[in-house]
Amino acid sequence: MRMVDLIEKKRDGKELTTEEINFIIEGYTKGEIPDYQVSAFSMAVFFKDMTQRERADLTMAMVNSGDTIDLSAIEGVKVDKHSTGGVGDTTTLVLAPLVAALDVPVAKMSGRGLGHTGGTVDKLEAVAGFHVEITNEEFVKLVNEHKIAVIGQSGNLTPADKKLYALRDVTATVDSIPMIASSIMSKKIAAGADAIVLDVKTGAGAFMKTLDGSKDLARAMVGIGNNVGRRTMAVISDMSQPLGAAIGNALEVQEAIDTLKGHGPKDLEDLCLALGSQMVFLAGKASSLEDAENKLREVIANGKALDKFRDFLANQGGDASVVDHPERLPQAAYKIEVPAPRSGVVSEIVADEIGVAAMWLGAGRATKESEIDLAVGLMLNKKVGEAVQEGESLVTIHANSEDVANVKAKILAAISIADSAEAPTLIYGTIIE
Amino acid sequence: MRMVDLIEKKRDGKELTTEEINFIIEGYTKGEIPDYQVSAFSMAVFFKDMTQRERADLTMAMVNSGDTIDLSAIEGVKVDKHSTGGVGDTTTLVLAPLVAALDVPVAKMSGRGLGHTGGTVDKLEAVAGFHVEITNEEFVKLVNEHKIAVIGQSGNLTPADKKLYALRDVTATVDSIPMIASSIMSKKIAAGADAIVLDVKTGAGAFMKTLDGSKDLARAMVGIGNNVGRRTMAVISDMSQPLGAAIGNALEVQEAIDTLKGHGPKDLEDLCLALGSQMVFLAGKASSLEDAENKLREVIANGKALDKFRDFLANQGGDASVVDHPERLPQAAYKIEVPAPRSGVVSEIVADEIGVAAMWLGAGRATKESEIDLAVGLMLNKKVGEAVQEGESLVTIHANSEDVANVKAKILAAISIADSAEAPTLIYGTIIE
Repeated sequence: MRMVDLIEKKRDGKELTTEEINFIIEGYTKGEIPDYQVSAFSMAVFFKDMTQRERADLTMAMVNSGDTIDLSAIEGVKVDKHSTGGVGDTTTLVLAPLVAALDVPVAKMSGRGLGHTGGTVDKLEAVAGFHVEITNEEFVKLVNEHKIAVIGQSGNLTPADKKLYALRDVTATVDSIPMIASSIMSKKIAAGADAIVLDVKTGAGAFMKTLDGSKDLARAMVGIGNNVGRRTMAVISDMSQPLGAAIGNALEVQEAIDTLKGHGPKDLEDLCLALGSQMVFLAGKASSLEDAENKLREVIANGKALDKFRDFLANQGGDASVVDHPERLPQAAYKIEVPAPRSGVVSEIVADEIGVAAMWLGAGRATKESEIDLAVGLMLNKKVGEAVQEGESLVTIHANSEDVANVKAKILAAISIADSAEAPTLIYGTIIE
Repeated sequence: MRMVDLIEKKRDGKELTTEEINFIIEGYTKGEIPDYQVSAFSMAVFFKDMTQRERADLTMAMVNSGDTIDLSAIEGVKVDKHSTGGVGDTTTLVLAPLVAALDVPVAKMSGRGLGHTGGTVDKLEAVAGFHVEITNEEFVKLVNEHKIAVIGQSGNLTPADKKLYALRDVTATVDSIPMIASSIMSKKIAAGADAIVLDVKTGAGAFMKTLDGSKDLARAMVGIGNNVGRRTMAVISDMSQPLGAAIGNALEVQEAIDTLKGHGPKDLEDLCLALGSQMVFLAGKASSLEDAENKLREVIANGKALDKFRDFLANQGGDASVVDHPERLPQAAYKIEVPAPRSGVVSEIVADEIGVAAMWLGAGRATKESEIDLAVGLMLNKKVGEAVQEGESLVTIHANSEDVANVKAKILAAISIADSAEAPTLIYGTIIE
């Protein structure tokens, strides 16, 4: 088999065999196939796409390129949730205890990563004492006994995906549905998921800017999952503005607690119920999505979800009293309001720009070496579609420095006020098979 | 400027500026832009093409990537001819003295290269004593005084094209009209041509298998030439079967002599008249293509073309007596006939396969290290459309070994005989602007 022939085959719109896809991914991972052939191949895939079968094969070839996590010692159906990213997305912090309260095993491997705010591990470390440095044995024991635990990332998962993504990033071949879909799915499958729930964001602050693009990506991933024996469902949700109100690490923990108590922001609660229903249903803990949603509302109402969060924090060394005393979470030294420059209705909050403002405060990492300030961040006091009076606060800046002129300017540039505006649709659809 | 943005721009079908194309070619030549970006870019060009302006810019960027030959010391319009390759193509050997006899300056730089038979230099070295190791001063003086000379290749011409071609060859991006056209044109322009005549082959034995593809390529090259101030014309000619009868080095020299005497194979003569007319017209030595053709027929009829060939050989140390004593050319030890297995009409002679048979005999180089046997080769006794009796010779093998069973089998497999068949069209069209 020669790589040049496989590039030509894809270039000419033909379907590659399983063997051919394995040849490409194995050869690339081992360094036997050079970057310049794989980048030409990726561009051919950009133009000619891949069939469902090819996408499934590509995904599994990337899974098999490195280590895989064996969660078989954990009882039950391990459902993982993945979001395609966005700003102020607190869903993971809410969903983990919420579905665990219904005996859905949450065995989460999480990292830190770059971004506007920290990763899930960073956020949880806003709770004093909480840590993810536990052994695999402890991890398995915790999930079996308490249905929930988070462990730091380890192992060499999907090295082919890492190598391929880095190459795509510099060769204008990132925006390819089959490549994006197989990249995401391979990581979830390598991390041991039996079933997968996807939160595919759409809009200005999302990776996928258009609804059609987001639907295509969601369908591609659900198709792959079902093709490789991992039941997969997806929700397509709005990211034209940040989700919820909090953007920042401790602030999002507090927002998660509020949501578990039943008085979080409505958009965050609604999305958590939609995603949680799919997780509970796929785990076999409800007879339908409706049944699952009712059960989720019940564990919020009766406090079981909040109890689960307390257990979870305590089990991994955290100070569970923050649930009742949120002031014990890290607090910023200054709270600075950003007043509305005019009266009207908020018509736009550019999610990306708000995210950058939060990062400037120190809420996220621009490079691997950056230090995160867990206390800082932003609270949105108004969302799109809400009326505001001139001088009323649009955003509260939580900062550890008084000098936030640049952050303030960034925020004001990101928010538009018009005479009238509608709140955007939150959930554009679900893809369940 | 970032290469990844330029790849994306081309991927999205937008037109690159002159500055952007120069950035790519200069950066790639200097090694500042890596192969993996250029291969992705090439694949994007494969799918999205280039405008006439982009093609002209790409061509000149490749010309400017290395040395260029200055032929300004040679009087008159320097017209170069280029063929897109084929089997048994003796046109260069005929055309050089033919147009020089009409005072068109032929200042040819020629190489050896790989292929079914040798390059022009190899073929001419079948004439005892002939050599191309002359100084630039001798070269210029010979052309000014005699209108014809051939010199070996020197200088670092179009290094960008060499690097790019090698990359395209292993990334399935060879078959791209804008890339092929700019590659060919850049080489001709760097070699000093003021005007260019192109022989674009079409059919099974050609690089371009379809007539549409050949026409597109011809139009692309003529477009580039006229865009960069080099008047360019093209003939689209058949290569479904080999041109003429001879395939081999000394055999083709003899065939050229026959043609200059006016009794060469009709297809070779017709094509030489078509290409020669364009060369003479572009050199300003005739008022029209018809006028040019009449003048070419005249110098064949009155012997001036043959005299010019004698002068040419003698000027570069060659034994000009071969023109009147072809037996003084290298002769193979054995002439072995390949009899027709049945009676009928020759319906197909697969040019590529015949070429491979000639190479097996030693007529060409498979690798740079191969030694050429100038005496060996094939003479086609029948062409497509000609009747043949069972047992009559289809091909005469000129070999220096009696063991030619494999060559014979290859030839028989390449030639079909049917109940009836038509001779193919030789010239499918000309593109003159």
